[in-house]
Amino acid sequence: TTDMANTEDEIGIVRGLAWTSVGGDTLEIEVNIMPGKGEFLLTGKLGDVMKESAQAGISYIRSVSEQYQIENNFFKEHDIHIHIPEGAVPKDGPSAGITMAAAMLSAIIQKPVKADVAMTGEITLRGRVLPVGGLKEKLLAAKNAGIKTVCVPADNEKDVSEISQEIKRGLDIHFVSRMQDVLEIAFADGKEA
Amino acid sequence: TTDMANTEDEIGIVRGLAWTSVGGDTLEIEVNIMPGKGEFLLTGKLGDVMKESAQAGISYIRSVSEQYQIENNFFKEHDIHIHIPEGAVPKDGPSAGITMAAAMLSAIIQKPVKADVAMTGEITLRGRVLPVGGLKEKLLAAKNAGIKTVCVPADNEKDVSEISQEIKRGLDIHFVSRMQDVLEIAFADGKEA
Amino acid sequence: TTDMANTEDEIGIVRGLAWTSVGGDTLEIEVNIMPGKGEFLLTGKLGDVMKESAQAGISYIRSVSEQYQIENNFFKEHDIHIHIPEGAVPKDGPSAGITMAAAMLSAIIQKPVKADVAMTGEITLRGRVLPVGGLKEKLLAAKNAGIKTVCVPADNEKDVSEISQEIKRGLDIHFVSRMQDVLEIAFADGKEA
Amino acid sequence: TTDMANTEDEIGIVRGLAWTSVGGDTLEIEVNIMPGKGEFLLTGKLGDVMKESAQAGISYIRSVSEQYQIENNFFKEHDIHIHIPEGAVPKDGPSAGITMAAAMLSAIIQKPVKADVAMTGEITLRGRVLPVGGLKEKLLAAKNAGIKTVCVPADNEKDVSEISQEIKRGLDIHFVSRMQDVLEIAFADGKEA
Amino acid sequence: TTDMANTEDEIGIVRGLAWTSVGGDTLEIEVNIMPGKGEFLLTGKLGDVMKESAQAGISYIRSVSEQYQIENNFFKEHDIHIHIPEGAVPKDGPSAGITMAAAMLSAIIQKPVKADVAMTGEITLRGRVLPVGGLKEKLLAAKNAGIKTVCVPADNEKDVSEISQEIKRGLDIHFVSRMQDVLEIAFADGKEA
Amino acid sequence: TTDMANTEDEIGIVRGLAWTSVGGDTLEIEVNIMPGKGEFLLTGKLGDVMKESAQAGISYIRSVSEQYQIENNFFKEHDIHIHIPEGAVPKDGPSAGITMAAAMLSAIIQKPVKADVAMTGEITLRGRVLPVGGLKEKLLAAKNAGIKTVCVPADNEKDVSEISQEIKRGLDIHFVSRMQDVLEIAFADGKEA
Ligand SMILES: [Ca+2]
Ligand SMILES: [Ca+2]
Ligand SMILES: [Ca+2]
Ligand SMILES: [Ca+2]
Ligand SMILES: [Ca+2]
Ligand SMILES: [Ca+2]
Ligand SMILES: [Ca+2]
Ligand SMILES: [Ca+2]
Ligand SMILES: [Ca+2]
Ligand SMILES: [Ca+2]
Ligand SMILES: [Ca+2]
Ligand SMILES: [Ca+2]
Repeated sequence: TTDMANTEDEIGIVRGLAWTSVGGDTLEIEVNIMPGKGEFLLTGKLGDVMKESAQAGISYIRSVSEQYQIENNFFKEHDIHIHIPEGAVPKDGPSAGITMAAAMLSAIIQKPVKADVAMTGEITLRGRVLPVGGLKEKLLAAKNAGIKTVCVPADNEKDVSEISQEIKRGLDIHFVSRMQDVLEIAFADGKEA
Repeated sequence: TTDMANTEDEIGIVRGLAWTSVGGDTLEIEVNIMPGKGEFLLTGKLGDVMKESAQAGISYIRSVSEQYQIENNFFKEHDIHIHIPEGAVPKDGPSAGITMAAAMLSAIIQKPVKADVAMTGEITLRGRVLPVGGLKEKLLAAKNAGIKTVCVPADNEKDVSEISQEIKRGLDIHFVSRMQDVLEIAFADGKEA
Repeated sequence: TTDMANTEDEIGIVRGLAWTSVGGDTLEIEVNIMPGKGEFLLTGKLGDVMKESAQAGISYIRSVSEQYQIENNFFKEHDIHIHIPEGAVPKDGPSAGITMAAAMLSAIIQKPVKADVAMTGEITLRGRVLPVGGLKEKLLAAKNAGIKTVCVPADNEKDVSEISQEIKRGLDIHFVSRMQDVLEIAFADGKEA
Repeated sequence: TTDMANTEDEIGIVRGLAWTSVGGDTLEIEVNIMPGKGEFLLTGKLGDVMKESAQAGISYIRSVSEQYQIENNFFKEHDIHIHIPEGAVPKDGPSAGITMAAAMLSAIIQKPVKADVAMTGEITLRGRVLPVGGLKEKLLAAKNAGIKTVCVPADNEKDVSEISQEIKRGLDIHFVSRMQDVLEIAFADGKEA
Repeated sequence: TTDMANTEDEIGIVRGLAWTSVGGDTLEIEVNIMPGKGEFLLTGKLGDVMKESAQAGISYIRSVSEQYQIENNFFKEHDIHIHIPEGAVPKDGPSAGITMAAAMLSAIIQKPVKADVAMTGEITLRGRVLPVGGLKEKLLAAKNAGIKTVCVPADNEKDVSEISQEIKRGLDIHFVSRMQDVLEIAFADGKEA
Repeated sequence: TTDMANTEDEIGIVRGLAWTSVGGDTLEIEVNIMPGKGEFLLTGKLGDVMKESAQAGISYIRSVSEQYQIENNFFKEHDIHIHIPEGAVPKDGPSAGITMAAAMLSAIIQKPVKADVAMTGEITLRGRVLPVGGLKEKLLAAKNAGIKTVCVPADNEKDVSEISQEIKRGLDIHFVSRMQDVLEIAFADGKEA
């Protein structure tokens, strides 16, 4: 089922874009942060590549934690749970990397993410954003879900340029090459708008 | 075998609704809370999707623990065991999500659940209730088991409207979109009746 | 091989009844409690359903530990080992649930179990006894082994009523619906005789 | 290869008897006890039934540790390693149970086992000795290896009676029904000789 | 996709050379060091041989930690994460051994690696560099990615001599036999240039 | 590739002899000892039998640690890593047992092993050396690698006697029956030369 854009900015929930053999879809990535002992929970029938992508995302966040004023012991004293509904639908691939990282950081620093933003892109350990596939289907799904702003890897610029204007009309497409670019666009009080 | 509705309100036991190729069935979800070290036990031949659904449920409860006056260290100092008889029958799917969450919260805060309530719905990490399948068979099974009140996901409202009145007659069907809705209906001293 | 009834009441040993394609059999469930660190050992080529059944049993016991004067830290400071000879014979299914629970409780509170009692029944987390199959073969095996008293799930009453008197003659058959019923019958100093 | 009987009494080494499709064989079970943290190591390509048999043996020993003056914390502060050469040959089945238990107890209490003793028999958690198969081949292998004394399960007495005198001649065969019987025969300073 | 050489010297990022059935490729190995508890994370769909190669690398570094002034407790108090994008592409084999080791040491001692260096070679526990395959394809990939300096195992010298000058022109090829040789060439402030 | 004998005595490196369908080979077993928490790492694509063989070796060393003046807490406070290059080549079987044990002890007590020694033999938990296969191919490989001294299990004496003098010429072959024999020959300052 196609989920519509959030109706208000939320903390720890970010909209991703998926691409399957039957077309594009949006998926809502949810993150809960709980007092705990450093466990990292990944649910929603995620494949190994997607789980590793989440691990890369959390390691990236840990490596830049100082610049977000995250306390020294935060990761030892909390559990992080990423869940992607719908729980019976298998999901895999690295293209939700930046979405999972954005949702985790939003939950950790308690900063809301704009309701009408969606994103797709592989994340590396150092926060670079790598290109992904299925852009046409993903942009169409974003549009159908009422999304206004989409983050797309800079290295997909050429792919996007080849997509018809009809699909792209009404979408504010941002090309991102580093995780900082993503966060500037997605966080509700970012300078970008 | 079809289990009849509980004869009295119980703590930590909630009736779910299942749907198999041979029709609907009710299943009684049991939860025990024991002094322990934070282990989470899941028995009754549960499949991976169902186990992840239980994990989403417990993380949801942990994230709202303050509003239920659950102590800070509760989850570190107790073990939680979810068991679904009959132990030899394989069970899977996300549709017992809200039932398992309700049973866990009932056991944790020691609040009884009404004997004549049953429910079905996927739970997300943030407590949203997602639609499920097999409504017709599930409602029929609920009715046959003597259930009076059923919680059904709001996004299944259209599916329910298409089911014949004959099946629905005598059932008080509530459409729920968040876990709070479920608890208000299910807990024995809730305002809803 | 058919094992005969114990010659004297023993602590931590309870006779179960099994049912295979070649007929019924008795099996002697042994439990050792040892100073330890809370490990739960299950040996004797037990299948997953049987292992989960044992887990349900121990959680049930933990949940009622107060009423048996079991100390707070007992389960953290002891290891519990359930073994079912013969070690090379695969065993599975939930029907040894009440037998394993009775053997564990007997070993924990050091109360002997009557030598001439056997039992069959699935246990739930809350100590309910659920019906099982193969009653005819099981009762025959019990009789051949010299058993005098058999605990059978209350929900199997109809199945038992259909078994010929010839088989049941000489067996004192008790229909049980909760674990307390079982223990009252099995423990050597119970009021029942 | 056929190993000959030990030339002198040793601590922690006991001779077992195995039975394969190509005949009987002896196998030398070695146990090392090391200061450690309670680990239990099983090597020599042992199958699951054999590993569980070893676990039953060590639990039996733990349950009778007082009568052998084994200190309270012994099992928490030592690692126990059972190894059965030849490491490339798969081994399985419960019939080495009493041999592994005897070797472990010998190593723990530092009491030598007689060089010319061999044994076969399943052990239960409570130290009972259960019957095994392949007696004829095993006794022949014992004889060829220069063994003088063999412990055989009491419930195999009939099987042994059917084996020709030619094979049994020169072997002192003891029928054992409990682990104590085994130890009395095997330990070098036991009363039995 | 072919990644170009880094534009500036970086800490914890080293360029490796891979060889697949469809030709050579470069791969950027990223390492993050985080305050932690000694965990070693390996992501990017790495096969078992590659993971073991990473383990050999980190053990080599631990064994020479004194000569790099790495504190005694460093490895207990930090987590090390190696990630190799692109996350959906399976990678295996031992030939990234020296690259992973160089990236880890760079991240640990915070010493940048030259942007225009790439390398290939199996590492042993003692820091020896063993020969690898696919040299021709790897050198071609390095050249296409704008690499200037390549470390190649000394035992591959003969293989390299057989590659045409056209491919090797413009590449500064170093034959290395020990990890020290690699580091001298790769670290930005090494004496070698 | 055939590795030549070491050019100088080294600590923690011992030459083994392997036997594959395509002939004999030498393999260099490397051991690193690092401050740690008692982990035992085995890399180089080792099969289960080989891993168990390494475990038998380390348990043997632990059991004789007093006679080598190894401190009480050594094994709890160090990690031991055995690696056998080449990392992509699968290795299995028990015949590297004495070689791995010798390399570990050399690394633990920091005593160099002679450069021109190679060895083959299964080790038992008690330090006995058991016979292995492929002697002819192994001796040939040793000779080709420039090895001067070879340790061979005493129980292989007959096999060696049947190998042609041409192969054995120039090799100093020692028949060993216990691990002490091996160490006396292999350690650089042993009395044997
Ligand atoms: Ca969807
Ligand atoms: Ca993708
Ligand atoms: Ca049912
Ligand atoms: Ca469903
Ligand atoms: Ca039996
Ligand atoms: Ca059954
Ligand atoms: Ca043998
Ligand atoms: Ca057997
Ligand atoms: Ca690439
Ligand atoms: Ca390679
Ligand atoms: Ca080689
Ligand atoms: Ca071999």
